[in-house]
Amino acid sequence: MSNTLDFAIDLLKRRSLTPGDAGCQEAMIARLEPLGFKIERMRFGAVDNFYARRGNTAPLIVFAGHTDVVPTGPLDQWHTPPFEPTIKDGMLYARGAADMKTSLAAFITSIEAFVSEYPDHPGSIGLLITADEEGIAIEGTVKVVEALQARGERFDYCIVGEPTSNKVVGDMIKNGRRGSLSGKLIVKGVQGHIAYPHLVKNPIHLAAPAIKEMVETVWDHGNEYFPPTSWQISNINGGTGATNVVPGHVEILFNFRYCPAVDGQGSSEESLRSRVHAILDSHGFEYTLVWEHNQSYITPRGQLVEAISQAIRESYGVTPDLSTTGGTSDGRFIADICQEVIEFGPLNATIHKLNECVAVADIEPLKETYKRTMQSLLLKSYDR
Amino acid sequence: MSNTLDFAIDLLKRRSLTPGDAGCQEAMIARLEPLGFKIERMRFGAVDNFYARRGNTAPLIVFAGHTDVVPTGPLDQWHTPPFEPTIKDGMLYARGAADMKTSLAAFITSIEAFVSEYPDHPGSIGLLITADEEGIAIEGTVKVVEALQARGERFDYCIVGEPTSNKVVGDMIKNGRRGSLSGKLIVKGVQGHIAYPHLVKNPIHLAAPAIKEMVETVWDHGNEYFPPTSWQISNINGGTGATNVVPGHVEILFNFRYCPAVDGQGSSEESLRSRVHAILDSHGFEYTLVWEHNQSYITPRGQLVEAISQAIRESYGVTPDLSTTGGTSDGRFIADICQEVIEFGPLNATIHKLNECVAVADIEPLKETYKRTMQSLLLKSYDR
Repeated sequence: MSNTLDFAIDLLKRRSLTPGDAGCQEAMIARLEPLGFKIERMRFGAVDNFYARRGNTAPLIVFAGHTDVVPTGPLDQWHTPPFEPTIKDGMLYARGAADMKTSLAAFITSIEAFVSEYPDHPGSIGLLITADEEGIAIEGTVKVVEALQARGERFDYCIVGEPTSNKVVGDMIKNGRRGSLSGKLIVKGVQGHIAYPHLVKNPIHLAAPAIKEMVETVWDHGNEYFPPTSWQISNINGGTGATNVVPGHVEILFNFRYCPAVDGQGSSEESLRSRVHAILDSHGFEYTLVWEHNQSYITPRGQLVEAISQAIRESYGVTPDLSTTGGTSDGRFIADICQEVIEFGPLNATIHKLNECVAVADIEPLKETYKRTMQSLLLKSYDR
Repeated sequence: MSNTLDFAIDLLKRRSLTPGDAGCQEAMIARLEPLGFKIERMRFGAVDNFYARRGNTAPLIVFAGHTDVVPTGPLDQWHTPPFEPTIKDGMLYARGAADMKTSLAAFITSIEAFVSEYPDHPGSIGLLITADEEGIAIEGTVKVVEALQARGERFDYCIVGEPTSNKVVGDMIKNGRRGSLSGKLIVKGVQGHIAYPHLVKNPIHLAAPAIKEMVETVWDHGNEYFPPTSWQISNINGGTGATNVVPGHVEILFNFRYCPAVDGQGSSEESLRSRVHAILDSHGFEYTLVWEHNQSYITPRGQLVEAISQAIRESYGVTPDLSTTGGTSDGRFIADICQEVIEFGPLNATIHKLNECVAVADIEPLKETYKRTMQSLLLKSYDR
């Protein structure tokens, strides 16, 4: 049994349902301290986080991830108990196997191997680990990053261990995420009996032409890294339930997944907000609109993308595509203190599902990938 | 105390909550039989109805109405018990006072007076009374009309005793009602995650341009008797509740209050249905649409309108306006077997409300109105 598989199983036995940690972080710390890492436990609210660093010089490469896992779903539909990691037909089954305790184990074992080989490596290695990624994510990475930012600490490179692989491990790394901008729009009318149309102002009728215009708007054309910005309504609700009453308002929840500007191509939170208001205002109805924003990030091709791509090729024999699809990740927070952030980890096919798993054969190459990336970024001017 | 007030109080004491009759119809029958009326009790389901007729020749004038009343609402907010008719400051208070037991009493006493004065009148007098008007109205007038239609019986004139007066008694008679055509529209799309817009088909986005077109459509321009047809959405609901999911369908409930065609001006159920389908089909989305129709009716100016208008002028000193506003009434069913149907009765200000009432002074002129209408329609060629 490999060292990485062994430690992954140790972490997977711990019932760290979000935002729980169940001792995972202390198990990691117990292996980092002997390597000379300086450990900072950062508990915010009820959430455990830690930041660890070995070395005081640049460049600093940080591994980031989370110990919390999503709920199991119906236990009787799991073939094996979700917190009793089980190997069957070459697969390791457990909640968190793919998202993302195998990556955490590979962080540790790759660092152990690298430090053992290059005890006096130049630059620094860090870890930023949270137990609040799968939930509301307000006491986790975002708070640790704020604390680091407050004292002026910046990363040069960051690898988030999210399961980014699609069909085969290594086929995809994420070098950014779209922004997500949500709006809760309430269009106001005047309620009344449907038989007296001159006394009502139908908010659904008022909203329809504005919706049509939003649907037809081309917000941008995308850019090298992102598809064009997309606007979608997720929910629309208006009506009293009675079929003879015109309601007084209609509520519309919408969301942009937007392409952040790169070289002037794309959108921003501000540009989208002001364009939406311009459209709504032009339709001359009364409304309220409450916004919610999840920031975007983008890591253009550069040293980190090159290093990890090469490491993946060497470890898995696969050339990864760059992608910015999917939901949000903690990468967006880290981007505030790090110019080059990427995400790479196992296959995402089973994450958040019943019978989550990773292939045992894919585990050791993950450790190798992380180790090779450290080598190429930290040992550039060093005699390997 | 007038005979009409007396009988109104008798009826109002009976707790005929819809679809109940509580003996009202037998009390009416007990006064009609001595006058030579042939009585047909027509019970459908749990609902009492009766049809009565005196005479075998044309023209036949029928008085139509209902003995059932709507619920009282909170008893402690009534100033007097709703089923203990009480006269106070010139007003008669009771549930059903305006809608429509006073009209029923006036039917009976006007007929008694007319028959006593003209025992050998030409033509015929009829009554069509139901106890299922305030509820779902499926075992009442509609069924009686079907039975009469099946045997070929038609009315020449019909007066429905609904409370049509607005500011003062006599100021308004209804000579028709708009049609009501409702649709339950489900626009279908393809559900999916909001972050993958190429995999979804947003049904709200699909529906919006069609709604806009429906709102902008001029269905007709109204006519002499009806305002233009109005289309309104009462309810729109789409969405899973989750803000990151595009729903698979959106449900839209809409309603036409439509102007039935008079002299080629107006709309019909069929024309509206086919125009809606044409608009929806032109937008190229998948949908289902279930229709529900309440028919319209219209009685153009003619002998009945002239007769009752003159009778109102003589009895109340008021010239009535013709109106087709408001909801639906049993008049729409009777119109299937009667070319001239109008509705006339007390003030509608307190109907369905707490402390329903009529002015005592308005009761006797109602009897006079109905009697004078019989006189002018039945005695045209008769020596009064």
